Amino acid sequence: MHTSWEHRYAHRTQGMKSSAIRELLKVSSLPGMISFGGGFPAPEVFPIEKFKEACDTVLTEMGKQALQYGATEGYQPLRELIASNAGKYGIQVSADNVLITTGSQQSLDLLGKIFINRGDRILVESPTYLGALQAWNAYGCNYVTIDSDDDGMQTEQLHDLISTNIKFIYALPNFQNPSGTTLSLERRKQLIELANSQGVPIIEDDPYGQLRYEGEHLPPVVVLDDEIRSKEFPVYSGNVIYTSTFSKILAPGLRLAWVVAPVDVIKKLVQAKQGSDLNTSTFNQFVAYELAKSPWMREHIQTIRKVYRERRDTMLEALENNMPEGTDWTKPKGGLFLWVKLPEGCDTTKLFPKAIEEKVAYVPGESFHPNGGGKNTMRLNFSACNPETIKIGIQRLGKMIKDQLK
Amino acid sequence: MHTSWEHRYAHRTQGMKSSAIRELLKVSSLPGMISFGGGFPAPEVFPIEKFKEACDTVLTEMGKQALQYGATEGYQPLRELIASNAGKYGIQVSADNVLITTGSQQSLDLLGKIFINRGDRILVESPTYLGALQAWNAYGCNYVTIDSDDDGMQTEQLHDLISTNIKFIYALPNFQNPSGTTLSLERRKQLIELANSQGVPIIEDDPYGQLRYEGEHLPPVVVLDDEIRSKEFPVYSGNVIYTSTFSKILAPGLRLAWVVAPVDVIKKLVQAKQGSDLNTSTFNQFVAYELAKSPWMREHIQTIRKVYRERRDTMLEALENNMPEGTDWTKPKGGLFLWVKLPEGCDTTKLFPKAIEEKVAYVPGESFHPNGGGKNTMRLNFSACNPETIKIGIQRLGKMIKDQLK
Repeated sequence: MHTSWEHRYAHRTQGMKSSAIRELLKVSSLPGMISFGGGFPAPEVFPIEKFKEACDTVLTEMGKQALQYGATEGYQPLRELIASNAGKYGIQVSADNVLITTGSQQSLDLLGKIFINRGDRILVESPTYLGALQAWNAYGCNYVTIDSDDDGMQTEQLHDLISTNIKFIYALPNFQNPSGTTLSLERRKQLIELANSQGVPIIEDDPYGQLRYEGEHLPPVVVLDDEIRSKEFPVYSGNVIYTSTFSKILAPGLRLAWVVAPVDVIKKLVQAKQGSDLNTSTFNQFVAYELAKSPWMREHIQTIRKVYRERRDTMLEALENNMPEGTDWTKPKGGLFLWVKLPEGCDTTKLFPKAIEEKVAYVPGESFHPNGGGKNTMRLNFSACNPETIKIGIQRLGKMIKDQLK
Repeated sequence: MHTSWEHRYAHRTQGMKSSAIRELLKVSSLPGMISFGGGFPAPEVFPIEKFKEACDTVLTEMGKQALQYGATEGYQPLRELIASNAGKYGIQVSADNVLITTGSQQSLDLLGKIFINRGDRILVESPTYLGALQAWNAYGCNYVTIDSDDDGMQTEQLHDLISTNIKFIYALPNFQNPSGTTLSLERRKQLIELANSQGVPIIEDDPYGQLRYEGEHLPPVVVLDDEIRSKEFPVYSGNVIYTSTFSKILAPGLRLAWVVAPVDVIKKLVQAKQGSDLNTSTFNQFVAYELAKSPWMREHIQTIRKVYRERRDTMLEALENNMPEGTDWTKPKGGLFLWVKLPEGCDTTKLFPKAIEEKVAYVPGESFHPNGGGKNTMRLNFSACNPETIKIGIQRLGKMIKDQLK
């Protein structure tokens, strides 16, 4: 007898779907396909030789510790380095404010695990990062959405929305995934003020903060929050939980990210992480520490910026040359993505099979809207393909869309 | 104002406690301490030179793929290798039956995520593995416990217990953590028959299966289940979910384990894993594959067996020489642990601070009993310390216990 499993799964599994993006990746690897679908860093910028040296150093000098179990909180020197780097941005934190996680996806999952009760309301931008929705759907929350424009989340809507019993606000202020927009300084201040006034925590997701290609660095929301607090407490004890990652500045294959938060929140996350995976790969933490502590790291980030800036510029120019009238797109100042809006009435989900036929892939914008909308939008990644490929891909895309509009 | 977080945490966090074992580790690292507390492999057997070679090969030959994001299911050649190895044990599986996870703790967490609704009843041995309880407490289950003796879980109790609406049975048939006992062949057969007759799935946790120091290999429950099924389905589609890990045969610092299960269950686990950490470190999977595919791996496991066998023998002899009358302990045929029972009335939790004073650490047995009991028991690990240290540690422990009994 073939065993049937369906009736055995927990209720929460009904909210679980295979991520649209992950499924897309399968199509993307077909021969000849040009994919703007994934969120992949350019493998050309992976510092492979540096990785070799770091692996060798770690195994030679501290192999026994690096291959053993480690503390759930993370490798202490790495936590200290992250705390010290955060200090440079103007926020007073110690290693106790830092948790190392197995990639940002785990940061989001653990935050869902410690905060979300079934039916809780989470305030997110629309569109927002799909991975966050996927992590939190498992805990049965509902989403309240706030619109965004070229300056990010429209914080003037916050006042009304925030009073409707919100568990936390999820924001991606820098080069947002998927839209590529950046939250203005004025809006950052408004966001933290309104959140503080209502006692609603903010989760600030900042995977691309260091990948800015033009304009001036803006302070993270967590820094603005720290600035307005009394200095009674020696380390950060505010209202913001900040997350970032090594995936975009070193390599996603390490699965290495971090959370900066009040000590009490870190302790709760540690308890949740003990049950989730005990500790993040000790070896990978040691290797990342070797690389991240080196002055070379700064140069490396400059290199990535240079490569991605060129790719962004190439994509923007190609869009200008190939997209039909009535099409609009964002001009991101950093990050990995831009956002295209086709004329009203277009449906990028329906167009998708046509694009695949033409051997070009994107992510339909609909999937980034938890409560619907965005049918005429799409996310394009500009980091993974080289400039020549970007030009050809956007030509294909433009032609396909023009054909459809005829 | 200092932000208060307590009221914001989800209900499930009330069931989360910092693992007793993890907290113990902090004490264990004090100078001069001899710790039988952790579940650490001996760092002396970590194949550091082989790791260096493997890292170098992976980075040289496929660095760009190894440092990139990967499929949630796992690295395909590694899945195939695991499926092929499972085949050698007599179970027909393909790579589609295999999910790579970020350590066994993640296997347990994902299984909790897809199966457990609040209030579900899980059948576990008492004592049982603490990490499983910790993973599943977050999903709000209750435990029904079954006693065990020198031949493992007392399956004759199963008939009555299994009819009380059990979601799944959790079993560690080989060299159980914490007790070190092995489920007899007869009981394995009884377990799978009774589970099948009631349609209750079994989670078979087998981290130490390859670390047997005496006696003959016994077939895993999943193999016994496969044997009695019709061959209508080309790959395993039975009632058992099998988990194992690279932590004890390569290195825990990789955080690398796997689940073998019916394809339908793997698909559901993949959905859960997408939300939990996207994919297990691609780099670590590539490195482990390089090592695990080599014929050297067999020799390496022989080396580990030899080292641990000697340590087990040393501990057994030291217990014989140092423990007071009325103390009893298991004689494990493999694995990392043995289980000591002090005379009734002793309380190993209360004795613990005294042991720490004497600079020897263990895990009080109480924590392995989800519904209470085991006050006079303790778990001792024999893999992490060398024979000389084991002798001294058991002398200290024996003296401390004798002093208490005076």
